Amino acid sequence: MFDFTITADDPQNAARAGTAAHTGTAARTGFFETPHGELHTPVFAPVGTQATVKTLTPRDLAEAGATLVLSNTYHLYLRPGTQLVADFGGLHSFMGWPGPMLTDSGGFQVFSLAQMRKLDPDGVTFRSHIDGSLHRFTPESAIASQEDLGADVIMCLDECAEPLDRKYNEEALTRTHTWAVRCRTAQKRRDQALFGIVQGGIFADLRIESARTLRALDFPGYAIGGLSVGETKDQMYSTLDVTVPELPADKPRYLMGVGAPEDIVEGVARGIDIFDCVLPTRVARNGGLLTRQGRLNLRNARYAADPLPVEPGCDCYACQHFSRAYLRHLFKTEEILGLHLATVHNVRFMIRLMEEIRRQIAAGAFADFRAAFLAEFRQPDQDVRHAQKEKRRQAANSK
Amino acid sequence: MFDFTITADDPQNAARAGTAAHTGTAARTGFFETPHGELHTPVFAPVGTQATVKTLTPRDLAEAGATLVLSNTYHLYLRPGTQLVADFGGLHSFMGWPGPMLTDSGGFQVFSLAQMRKLDPDGVTFRSHIDGSLHRFTPESAIASQEDLGADVIMCLDECAEPLDRKYNEEALTRTHTWAVRCRTAQKRRDQALFGIVQGGIFADLRIESARTLRALDFPGYAIGGLSVGETKDQMYSTLDVTVPELPADKPRYLMGVGAPEDIVEGVARGIDIFDCVLPTRVARNGGLLTRQGRLNLRNARYAADPLPVEPGCDCYACQHFSRAYLRHLFKTEEILGLHLATVHNVRFMIRLMEEIRRQIAAGAFADFRAAFLAEFRQPDQDVRHAQKEKRRQAANSK
Repeated sequence: MFDFTITADDPQNAARAGTAAHTGTAARTGFFETPHGELHTPVFAPVGTQATVKTLTPRDLAEAGATLVLSNTYHLYLRPGTQLVADFGGLHSFMGWPGPMLTDSGGFQVFSLAQMRKLDPDGVTFRSHIDGSLHRFTPESAIASQEDLGADVIMCLDECAEPLDRKYNEEALTRTHTWAVRCRTAQKRRDQALFGIVQGGIFADLRIESARTLRALDFPGYAIGGLSVGETKDQMYSTLDVTVPELPADKPRYLMGVGAPEDIVEGVARGIDIFDCVLPTRVARNGGLLTRQGRLNLRNARYAADPLPVEPGCDCYACQHFSRAYLRHLFKTEEILGLHLATVHNVRFMIRLMEEIRRQIAAGAFADFRAAFLAEFRQPDQDVRHAQKEKRRQAANSK
Repeated sequence: MFDFTITADDPQNAARAGTAAHTGTAARTGFFETPHGELHTPVFAPVGTQATVKTLTPRDLAEAGATLVLSNTYHLYLRPGTQLVADFGGLHSFMGWPGPMLTDSGGFQVFSLAQMRKLDPDGVTFRSHIDGSLHRFTPESAIASQEDLGADVIMCLDECAEPLDRKYNEEALTRTHTWAVRCRTAQKRRDQALFGIVQGGIFADLRIESARTLRALDFPGYAIGGLSVGETKDQMYSTLDVTVPELPADKPRYLMGVGAPEDIVEGVARGIDIFDCVLPTRVARNGGLLTRQGRLNLRNARYAADPLPVEPGCDCYACQHFSRAYLRHLFKTEEILGLHLATVHNVRFMIRLMEEIRRQIAAGAFADFRAAFLAEFRQPDQDVRHAQKEKRRQAANSK
């Protein structure tokens, strides 16, 4: 159970293939065994916050090629309650997803969504963003909740600090490490892989300290948290550069909440195996469709009479059956089917990207692929993106 | 093309079967040939107002057993424009529905949705409910728009008057009949069946006059309009009692905008072959799930931990995969998947009802089925339903 087998290693394969970029990268492919099936890595997990990947049925997910689905303990703890999910045999049967699942600890949402929070060494007390009711998470309760939910991979309770605030990161790291030990001890079920979470903001020494501390606890996998939360892309990448080498090579590495297609390619190049992010599903509902050339904004008038599919060559249900003009019509008329079809495409886009990444690594050609992908994929402006993120956070906090 | 063949006739079959209700009803089964396939009648058409049955893909519709889909000319004329749909080869290819389709003339929405309307003998001028822009429908333009859309069955432009207002109905009837002649003349395409629409409110003599006038024009099918718009159920049923016998027995009869399951059973008993209504899809999005016992309100706390499917024995995707508790969770958390799954169930409920109705007629047992269905199906209070309808109309008008 939870064996992780590396099947291809980019530097070796690249050298063997004698490709132009024969020095290769830290990318690797593997498979990770879970009670609900084997994951081929690198893998991207669509996010099913409230026990549903928004607008998609489990069948849609399977058709998109999704293998791993993430769900959020904070949200499920509040509604419908983790005990109810346990009574239904866990998340898999409650939401009808038969494949591998992952839950976070709930900590991140407490820090980003809850209306009030009071930290103490033992845990965190907060008010629900829904009705203001008072709740408390401790390392032990976070594990108990995740044992109720029954995902294949579960997370230690951690504290995600502002990435640029050194003092806050130092304090938070102490708690995160103490809580990791307590989570390890609290775990009862042996059919769930508990991952430790490396924190430390953008500070190399803190990240190294965190990775070493957690590594000593011998987790079956390691997550890197506290990234893609306000730092620049360069800061994120250089943090990965110092963190990943400190993690054991024979265990899966999970970059939490990342990400954008370009960040996934860069993360894979740095040795990351597992990703999750709301980006593809969230931008879909906003009319942002992912293509290899970048985002296509369906609301744009230029698509009003465009007979092409969103991305020619894509094998998703939306691209196989509908024109950009029809999808644009659905968005302009605020039809729910538009949100669904856009989500179908974006999830399939991410899964296809991961499939190609795995093929390229196996062929020893990932470095070339990475360069070609980044040259073609038009990235949204970082300032614009940060402004959007800030706006969402303020909106969530003002609820 | 457009041949209508009656395959079973309830009075004859009932007499032959020697069932308890051996006198039978006016119900009949048949098949109606269209360029996009054969319709087995009685048939219920889900409504795809804006070229999409809300929340469903064409595949979902096919899986629910839907054969006929209705779309609204008024809405498509405003967005995306009927010319654009024509450029895409018509509604079938624009929205990806390969089976038979039906469009209304747009008249009903002009009278119920448009912000301002000015009638003259030649047509109706109105302002869009979306942006207040000025538009005009004439019998000729209503046919031209429907020829752009390319549905298999299209409708004459008619005027739907307040059902209880005798004077208004008399005046409107004159226009409706004149317009029916002009629509017949304006029709260019021969691969669309143009139906005449009987009007006349709840007034037996007006209904008889209207049916006879239209019958003289020899349409390939006849619609009954102006019902389920404010009159009582008894008034609707007695209007059908006097109207249907005036229509030719060998042509399909279409009861527009009806309806509720009990109204469909009563309509079939009176010889109706085609129905359409937003009710199953609209109540679904409100958490109202149709079952043989009546509506089940998913928001009700009693379903919070209910492991049963919405309707045990139902073969729809929602009932085959999810509990009432999960669907309730999706509604409580405002997840779009809840709207989708509820719609999947309600559409399948209506189609299954029609399948059973056809079987019962063929077996000569429809009268017994009708009595058993009405005894079991709990109907919402009529006053409540009228209040809801009035509220929706006011909301639409105040846009």
